[in-house]
Amino acid sequence: MTFTIVGERINTTLKNVQEAVAERDAAYIEADVREQAAAGATYIDVNAGARIGHEKEDMQWLLKIIQDAVTVPLCLDSPDPAVLEMAYGMVEITPMVNSISLEKERYDAMIPFLKGKACKIIALCMDDTGMPTSADDVVARAKKIVQALEDIGIKRDDIYVDPLIQPMSVDIQNGMMAMEAVKRIMTEISGVHTIGGLSNISYGLPQRRIINRNFLALMMAAGMDAAIMDPLDHELVALLQTTEMLLGQDEYCMNFITAVREGRI
Amino acid sequence: MTFTIVGERINTTLKNVQEAVAERDAAYIEADVREQAAAGATYIDVNAGARIGHEKEDMQWLLKIIQDAVTVPLCLDSPDPAVLEMAYGMVEITPMVNSISLEKERYDAMIPFLKGKACKIIALCMDDTGMPTSADDVVARAKKIVQALEDIGIKRDDIYVDPLIQPMSVDIQNGMMAMEAVKRIMTEISGVHTIGGLSNISYGLPQRRIINRNFLALMMAAGMDAAIMDPLDHELVALLQTTEMLLGQDEYCMNFITAVREGRI
Repeated sequence: MTFTIVGERINTTLKNVQEAVAERDAAYIEADVREQAAAGATYIDVNAGARIGHEKEDMQWLLKIIQDAVTVPLCLDSPDPAVLEMAYGMVEITPMVNSISLEKERYDAMIPFLKGKACKIIALCMDDTGMPTSADDVVARAKKIVQALEDIGIKRDDIYVDPLIQPMSVDIQNGMMAMEAVKRIMTEISGVHTIGGLSNISYGLPQRRIINRNFLALMMAAGMDAAIMDPLDHELVALLQTTEMLLGQDEYCMNFITAVREGRI
Repeated sequence: MTFTIVGERINTTLKNVQEAVAERDAAYIEADVREQAAAGATYIDVNAGARIGHEKEDMQWLLKIIQDAVTVPLCLDSPDPAVLEMAYGMVEITPMVNSISLEKERYDAMIPFLKGKACKIIALCMDDTGMPTSADDVVARAKKIVQALEDIGIKRDDIYVDPLIQPMSVDIQNGMMAMEAVKRIMTEISGVHTIGGLSNISYGLPQRRIINRNFLALMMAAGMDAAIMDPLDHELVALLQTTEMLLGQDEYCMNFITAVREGRI
């Protein structure tokens, strides 16, 4: 697969994960990340931010447990450069970092952290005026943040621009805005990647998983080549692999046929 | 819904339909078309071509039965202008005709039939050299056939161009070719419609329904606004309605929300 799946399951805002972390239940975490790895996660996101005052020690514990269990590279998910610095020192494989944005506070903290480091970076199209309001706005922000990252030596191929998917329930054009933005980013900033958290699209609507799956196919058609998602959502992964084939990215349909044979589709 | 669904179930190449027609089992046909109508078919395709030597009488019987059961307009599906002429005389609502192509024999038979008639027409991008081999080829054929139909007084809004979807198993770029062709037809022949028979895309592959559903979403994103499909495939219809919403064509998400409430998604 050429598509990058960032597995989103190790996040202390999720109740089961928070309990496992609080109780230092290594078996729970190990089992989860092994499943994510087996399901095809390219990166495993690790977010330990929910237990206020414990982020650093929780992150440290999680990284140790996870790296003992799997060899999948990690996506270090924190707004705190001190936590990221510690985490970066612990990882055995070049990680992804989640994330930088154009918000002054986060930007000023992240640029010195990123400078000179080998990593993939998720760049959110967010600034201090809030969420983008048009595809033009998203593309302008994307260009600004990619330029800033290239200025400190980060390669374009290591940058994953997140156009910030906004709910359909807020504005019926939000899906089209994201698709249009991705299409333009992938052509106007040639060589960069685009990534999104799919589930925002369905916020406030029923049957969210159906909406999210369908939106993944549409965003892939627009050019998005990475997603923060649950690799254990089998129907989502099946749709991803089917879409890759339909977009002509699966020679002789071999990945698709193999996935069907192995019961994954 | 703005999308046009041509229900494909009344076709004597299907074993159950052929049996019902042979035995003049009106109840079977009535039940099927009532279900298609309830499921949201915009047109019901009627193809009586499989029982060699019986097409005209079978078509006549079917049209009578179907029009007694439902008020959905019909799609008259035959290569034989004599059958179409008889059928056209029987229908109570302006029908769709399936189909004309650039193949000399069919073209020469259909043009005189269509001239001066009120109907929607499916125009296949097929000519005597065979299937199109590139998106350029499809678009050139589409322009030629639309021009020919406009020349005999058919309005562009009544024309449904079928780009001829070809199997992924034959060429991994066939999906992209169809998407690209539809995108270009919808912009370069502004005001025309595009239609496709989805199931060809998955010919020769396993899990065909999953592929067909996924492909419908991608083709809709490319601009296709009609399909020849099974309106009783609930997952396909659910996907269609979800995609319409994601493409910004469902104000306040009301059709989507209603469909969920009524258990259709």
